[in-house]
Amino acid sequence: MTTLTYQAETVAHLAQAEWALNITWADGSSNQFHYIWLRDNCPSPESRHPNGQKILETVSIPVDIRPRSVKLTEAGDIEIVWANDGHISHFAPDWLRRHAYPAKGRVKPAHSVTLWGAKLAKNLPEAAYADVWPNHQALGNWLALVRQYGVAILHGVPAEPGAIFKVVDLFGYVRETNYGRLFDVKSVTNPNNLAYTGLALSPHTDNPYRDPVPTLQLLHCLASSVDGGDSIIVDGFKVAETIRQREPDKFELLSTVPVRFQFRDKEADLSAEAPIISLNHRGEVAAIRFNNRSIAPFDFEADLMEPYYAAYRTFAAMLDSPEFQVCFKLESGSLFIVDNQRVLHGRTGFSSSGSRHLQGCYADRDGLYSRLAVLERVNSQDLGD
Amino acid sequence: MTTLTYQAETVAHLAQAEWALNITWADGSSNQFHYIWLRDNCPSPESRHPNGQKILETVSIPVDIRPRSVKLTEAGDIEIVWANDGHISHFAPDWLRRHAYPAKGRVKPAHSVTLWGAKLAKNLPEAAYADVWPNHQALGNWLALVRQYGVAILHGVPAEPGAIFKVVDLFGYVRETNYGRLFDVKSVTNPNNLAYTGLALSPHTDNPYRDPVPTLQLLHCLASSVDGGDSIIVDGFKVAETIRQREPDKFELLSTVPVRFQFRDKEADLSAEAPIISLNHRGEVAAIRFNNRSIAPFDFEADLMEPYYAAYRTFAAMLDSPEFQVCFKLESGSLFIVDNQRVLHGRTGFSSSGSRHLQGCYADRDGLYSRLAVLERVNSQDLGD
Repeated sequence: MTTLTYQAETVAHLAQAEWALNITWADGSSNQFHYIWLRDNCPSPESRHPNGQKILETVSIPVDIRPRSVKLTEAGDIEIVWANDGHISHFAPDWLRRHAYPAKGRVKPAHSVTLWGAKLAKNLPEAAYADVWPNHQALGNWLALVRQYGVAILHGVPAEPGAIFKVVDLFGYVRETNYGRLFDVKSVTNPNNLAYTGLALSPHTDNPYRDPVPTLQLLHCLASSVDGGDSIIVDGFKVAETIRQREPDKFELLSTVPVRFQFRDKEADLSAEAPIISLNHRGEVAAIRFNNRSIAPFDFEADLMEPYYAAYRTFAAMLDSPEFQVCFKLESGSLFIVDNQRVLHGRTGFSSSGSRHLQGCYADRDGLYSRLAVLERVNSQDLGD
Repeated sequence: MTTLTYQAETVAHLAQAEWALNITWADGSSNQFHYIWLRDNCPSPESRHPNGQKILETVSIPVDIRPRSVKLTEAGDIEIVWANDGHISHFAPDWLRRHAYPAKGRVKPAHSVTLWGAKLAKNLPEAAYADVWPNHQALGNWLALVRQYGVAILHGVPAEPGAIFKVVDLFGYVRETNYGRLFDVKSVTNPNNLAYTGLALSPHTDNPYRDPVPTLQLLHCLASSVDGGDSIIVDGFKVAETIRQREPDKFELLSTVPVRFQFRDKEADLSAEAPIISLNHRGEVAAIRFNNRSIAPFDFEADLMEPYYAAYRTFAAMLDSPEFQVCFKLESGSLFIVDNQRVLHGRTGFSSSGSRHLQGCYADRDGLYSRLAVLERVNSQDLGD
């Protein structure tokens, strides 16, 4: 757990430029803060509610706002009196330095992820339910594995129907869908979904025909006495980055051409369109959406058909490759959770003798990340910070 | 309700090109189908499960697959025997023509939306709960309003706590969050959110600090005897398209520069980053994310600060403009639903005398669109199709 400690910042020099305040710190570095940014982020109770939400309407700030005066107070704060209406803003130097923006580019995200291939099998991200349940530190560690690897296993969850909800309660909320709050993954007659057969399922993300897709999926094993039925996981981010490196033309197609996924039964009629690889505004891989069973016939221009099929096949072949797959047998009582926009999951086929019963449910990442952030606050306070 | 009727297609001519089959129809038009596309979309039970999901792994199809023979059967189907393994595919000409892909560009989405400004006030999209509840046709019409306008009102919902769930049950599932399955919008002491005060709320989308955001929001009025507290709605797509037309440089910034939104209280710590205007891969406006109360201090490069503030202020000013705002008083028992990625909502401030009590909850668009599609299937069957 990272313990953040902030040094009290000392201001060496304040200089008023035409549009911005320049602050030189005691260590010799400096930052520029635009006046409109400063007024917009004023922490006074008239500008910001005690709950942290902004009351001030940004649109009400004069675009050419200027200070009447700027000074360092005896307490060490920066005090600005604004020329237009005499409003007074006080800024703590520590807060300003933490929120300094870069001269060029963007502030980087606080957390990085670890891409993985087949070698992850030697060191699966896992924990025991008995450990994480009553222990904030251990729970935080387990949830951090999900953020880092996009997958984590939990052993020793009671092998009882519905016990999966106890795990969701540790971090968030169930995303209910047409499959229910919970769905039973076992062979049935007349399955509306191939998950409910003994067939092998090649690696896929769930519900790609939904927008928004559920961002987390949990699968909890209640019984496993069949031959086969091993779980398969693949890091879609790793596969995407590998394609970007090895075959950039294919990466370009997979990340720009939207394809359609669909699901239809008596009760539901779902359809959504997105590229298999979605990039964020930094050009980083942000989401994978792939399921060969629910993809609709390609409906894009004829000239793209051959190159796109080539790219699609390369992606699918890499998902099947031992270079990227991690296989493990989910024992009764064990559960895994995947980031459904990153890690693809699948299974080997299984015999009709013996029984295999999993329960699954969907949840969302925002709840998990929120819980993790609160635990990190609590845990760092436990450490005396 | 559109009743789709398909004419039986007659094939005039089949021609085998090197990579594709060319079909000339009886009306003289023609389409090209790549062999790999045809094999991939083969409807045989070995290739596709009766539930419609694809069993055939696309990656297993030889990239240079060719027919051994192609012919029209006596039943009017196209029969292809594949050279590599002798598998036989039968295609119904109707199905092929419906799934023909364009020589250039993309197949267009089936449903268009209607952008609106202040004039919508004269013709609000609305219905009565008593009508839609037992009536598939009326329910379909009401849900179609949500798809078309991004907002719809429902009158005469029982003014009882929790009755909002009866409306969600008509089309989908609640998205539970840290605010609960439902939240009470009324003034409280020490509010963790400004919604729970009597303050005016400028137009915003809810939970922009969440990823994925809830794509639908419902607000149901249980009591309204205050002065003020009128509801405000604004079509974010209309505002975005207007900016694109009037000030393309600002549109460029708003649709490419990600900004961060955050929410923090004792139990939650949420943060998400996206541009205020998100475009889809066709360059169409796909999502709006805007809330001046929960936006984080801008953390992008200094050179962007002034132009971005100018764009942000233009967007916010348009949300406040009578050109785009629709205001109405939500009476006790009435409810409105908004597409939270399209239509911004807000309210005027209200007095402390009298009472105002709304209940809100979140849901997702995929459930609503699915229910609507199923109703359209059912309703078109009712019409004898």
